[in-house]
Amino acid sequence: MPPALDDAALDQLFRNARTYRGSAQAWLDQPVSDEHLRQVYELAKRGPTSANCCPARFVFVRSPEAKALLRESLDSGNVEQTMAAPVTVIVGSDHEFYEKLPQLFPHTDARSWFAGKPSVIESTAFRNATLQGGYLILAARALGLDCGPMSGFDGARLDAAFFAGTAVKSNFLINLGHGNPASLSPRSPRLAFDEACRIA
Amino acid sequence: MPPALDDAALDQLFRNARTYRGSAQAWLDQPVSDEHLRQVYELAKRGPTSANCCPARFVFVRSPEAKALLRESLDSGNVEQTMAAPVTVIVGSDHEFYEKLPQLFPHTDARSWFAGKPSVIESTAFRNATLQGGYLILAARALGLDCGPMSGFDGARLDAAFFAGTAVKSNFLINLGHGNPASLSPRSPRLAFDEACRIA
Repeated sequence: MPPALDDAALDQLFRNARTYRGSAQAWLDQPVSDEHLRQVYELAKRGPTSANCCPARFVFVRSPEAKALLRESLDSGNVEQTMAAPVTVIVGSDHEFYEKLPQLFPHTDARSWFAGKPSVIESTAFRNATLQGGYLILAARALGLDCGPMSGFDGARLDAAFFAGTAVKSNFLINLGHGNPASLSPRSPRLAFDEACRIA
Repeated sequence: MPPALDDAALDQLFRNARTYRGSAQAWLDQPVSDEHLRQVYELAKRGPTSANCCPARFVFVRSPEAKALLRESLDSGNVEQTMAAPVTVIVGSDHEFYEKLPQLFPHTDARSWFAGKPSVIESTAFRNATLQGGYLILAARALGLDCGPMSGFDGARLDAAFFAGTAVKSNFLINLGHGNPASLSPRSPRLAFDEACRIA
């Protein structure tokens, strides 16, 4: 069995990683390359989803034009930090994900588990695209990037701007880049093991 | 800025990690200690959630009695692998998560963003507990454990058995332990970058 990763890796992924947010000062002025974004996806795509359904669709918003379009959908408190971030990832959930199951889960007819069943489609798309967004956050951290996830935006407006003519619905956003440590406040508390967990 | 983790770490987290499932042979007969479960939670709890709301509640099902209770809620295809797994994590979403916001997000009245707003509670609890389940999968892998996430079970029955008298609803399950490499089938394909992503 594999050993635990070393402390430096656990610190980078979890213990010392922070959410960068709150103002334009949250992000350093350092670009993120296409190649870096592709590397993040190549790791994140490996994470498990139900029946390997892989419903997440990612738009990496980086150009000034796309950032300006995104701005129109953002809650006011998220504008400054998002305009300053080198990249903002729109994590979308494809509600026609099941059309790709013959490719992704070829050994059985998994398409029929979903087609024509809106509530199963909805919960499966939402749950699994969210998981994939979580994998993307940790993949980005593993590759030396910082993240600032957000959910304050007008989903209908964002979908019209970025996903028109598709069955993709926006789920949440992740600012991506190199965070500015000087912008950080003290870390918020977390629930202790016994507040959030039990062993049965 | 931090460098990328080394290849061995990226392999363990993403590239070589596999989902263990399909039969009782998926899991090696090696127990997982309380201390190991606590270490997994201590990492996973650090992952970001919206307004630090931390809605996930985790039940680590390990005793024969609790496993037998869990069995009654499982889809038949998930029974063997789950009974054989050293631990099964029930990832629950607390729909009264906002009652802990004065503790978790003390610098403003975030409780009022949610109290009395069932659809915001529902989507926030579901999204963020799912993210935390994803962090738990990667924390377990980072600490040398293997995972087998699942969503085939009777949620109402499981909730009655494990979350009676609370506002926690089951979200998904994760078998946890040391996977048996001999049980693995070839890896399923994933979507290529250009099938799932675009840079705007």
